[in-house]
Amino acid sequence: MIERHVWRLVKRPVGDIADGDLEYCTETLRPLADGEFVLRVTYLSLDPTNRIWMSDQEQYMPPVEIGAGMRGGVCGRVAESRKAGVNPGDLFAGLGEWADHFITDGTGLSRLPEIPGIPLAVMFGTLGLVGPTAYFGLLDIGKPQPGETLVVSAAAGGVGQVVGQIGKIKGCKVIGIAGGKAKCDYVVNELGFDACIDYKSQDVGAELDRLAPEGVDINFEQVGGDIMVAVLKRMRLFGRVPLCGLISSYNATDGQEPPGFWTMMLMRRLTVRGFIVTDFMDRFAEGGMALAGWMLEGKLKTRQDIRPGLENAATVVKDLYSGGNFGKLLVEVTPP
Amino acid sequence: MIERHVWRLVKRPVGDIADGDLEYCTETLRPLADGEFVLRVTYLSLDPTNRIWMSDQEQYMPPVEIGAGMRGGVCGRVAESRKAGVNPGDLFAGLGEWADHFITDGTGLSRLPEIPGIPLAVMFGTLGLVGPTAYFGLLDIGKPQPGETLVVSAAAGGVGQVVGQIGKIKGCKVIGIAGGKAKCDYVVNELGFDACIDYKSQDVGAELDRLAPEGVDINFEQVGGDIMVAVLKRMRLFGRVPLCGLISSYNATDGQEPPGFWTMMLMRRLTVRGFIVTDFMDRFAEGGMALAGWMLEGKLKTRQDIRPGLENAATVVKDLYSGGNFGKLLVEVTPP
Repeated sequence: MIERHVWRLVKRPVGDIADGDLEYCTETLRPLADGEFVLRVTYLSLDPTNRIWMSDQEQYMPPVEIGAGMRGGVCGRVAESRKAGVNPGDLFAGLGEWADHFITDGTGLSRLPEIPGIPLAVMFGTLGLVGPTAYFGLLDIGKPQPGETLVVSAAAGGVGQVVGQIGKIKGCKVIGIAGGKAKCDYVVNELGFDACIDYKSQDVGAELDRLAPEGVDINFEQVGGDIMVAVLKRMRLFGRVPLCGLISSYNATDGQEPPGFWTMMLMRRLTVRGFIVTDFMDRFAEGGMALAGWMLEGKLKTRQDIRPGLENAATVVKDLYSGGNFGKLLVEVTPP
Repeated sequence: MIERHVWRLVKRPVGDIADGDLEYCTETLRPLADGEFVLRVTYLSLDPTNRIWMSDQEQYMPPVEIGAGMRGGVCGRVAESRKAGVNPGDLFAGLGEWADHFITDGTGLSRLPEIPGIPLAVMFGTLGLVGPTAYFGLLDIGKPQPGETLVVSAAAGGVGQVVGQIGKIKGCKVIGIAGGKAKCDYVVNELGFDACIDYKSQDVGAELDRLAPEGVDINFEQVGGDIMVAVLKRMRLFGRVPLCGLISSYNATDGQEPPGFWTMMLMRRLTVRGFIVTDFMDRFAEGGMALAGWMLEGKLKTRQDIRPGLENAATVVKDLYSGGNFGKLLVEVTPP
């Protein structure tokens, strides 16, 4: 019998996630049925969309039910198996629970390849999750052309880091937007962005006018709110907006739209397209190969923000919404 | 010496176009310089975008200058020429003035082909102007698939008629939105739309729920405002919104956005793309051939709303914004 720990959603957050919305439980796993296995979780990925899943607003998957184990991106190895072809030690990644162990029939999980020279946290966090989001959102929707100007909000976050570096690989001028000097310095000095605006100490609009007087061809949108409005006002003719997230609004109770933007979309012939990375599921292999290639060539760097201890997950997740993470946020649940 | 009549823009409209914003002038044309010719206008096209050109809001071409002849889509024949290769009687169409004659070096004009069996008003009004708008907007941006649900606002207008019929050719369920029973009956009974909602006497949202409980895959948007909001709320996953116009807002002094629509764009992975027909200029021949083919096969019908007399243009144009036209609105300036 395996004793496990799991975070259960006991209350839908109102506004910010509060203590008591999630409850840390210790339980004994039931015996496996045929076709099931137990995954021992190595890393739990904390992502902006977690807040959406906790709510019952309109969303792209069913909300997590009250009382259920909180849904999360996970990777880990099989601890026990009664499923044919699945053996202890096998590595899987996909959707699971905020738990150190969970029972599954494999739905929502797929085998995670291991590439020599790429650590598991990078393979899972960057190549498995945020990398494809950046890759398909930027290339399929943003369609970057050499010499174009690309703006990336949440630039030092998991997705933003990769978006900006792919933008540079594709020959764009890349301007990040991030909170604080350390993050801005990092994306410029370590990742090679052309510039980064610190939204905590600078006027985003004024800085965009200074850094990109030509305007913005691609706005890879992750945050919404005032920062989005400042960028959208400066979109160029035929600009593209891959709409990846609106993190500033997930905890908010009312919507935010830039006034007059429909007229601007028409006059400047803009394209706005919302997407979720799973829309590109059938092309994940293509994305993963390209990303791994760039990584092994040294063209794509990545930064993980790994926090120890499943018991801290409900506190750590709040950092996503306050800008407290620096790189792809993972919780190390059990040692890799 | 040719005496000509021309409508000059003397004041930018505030809200609706008012008497006195345009002035009807009688003038003597100056002699031609080398490389110029005089076009005698047969038809003047009146289009929703005219109101935009009269304003100095952000737009896709320079606004018409105060005192200048009002810009308009025209077709006509050459009356006099000092341009090599251009001879009296040659047929041209493109951008000109609200005038019975104007001097041009040919900029913005191109030769209009004549197809036996297709009247000049149809060739110009439908195949030359609104047809390509419908064709490229629906096919390139809307990407209709058999069995999908297409909603067309301003359904009985020049563009809307063609959009709906192409939608039927492509196997869509087509729901129009128009003002009044006569227009609704026309698009259903004459043009073969599956249904049409009369926004003047029906609740657009409730009717959409009844006629398309499955939701809307494509919203070919021409009007903006409350009608747009009602349709957008019912967009399906992966829906597309070719944004062709926002006529309800051109005369308005403040913007209109559906609340919470950014979140919906993200969750339902919608694509919104603004366009102007001239964006597809290099493919007009393709569009014209396809449209003429459907027309000669009897699959594409068209209705012109032809009003006599250039002197009435400033009054007639107001019908566009009050729903007073029924089909592509043209002014017959001189006999064809």
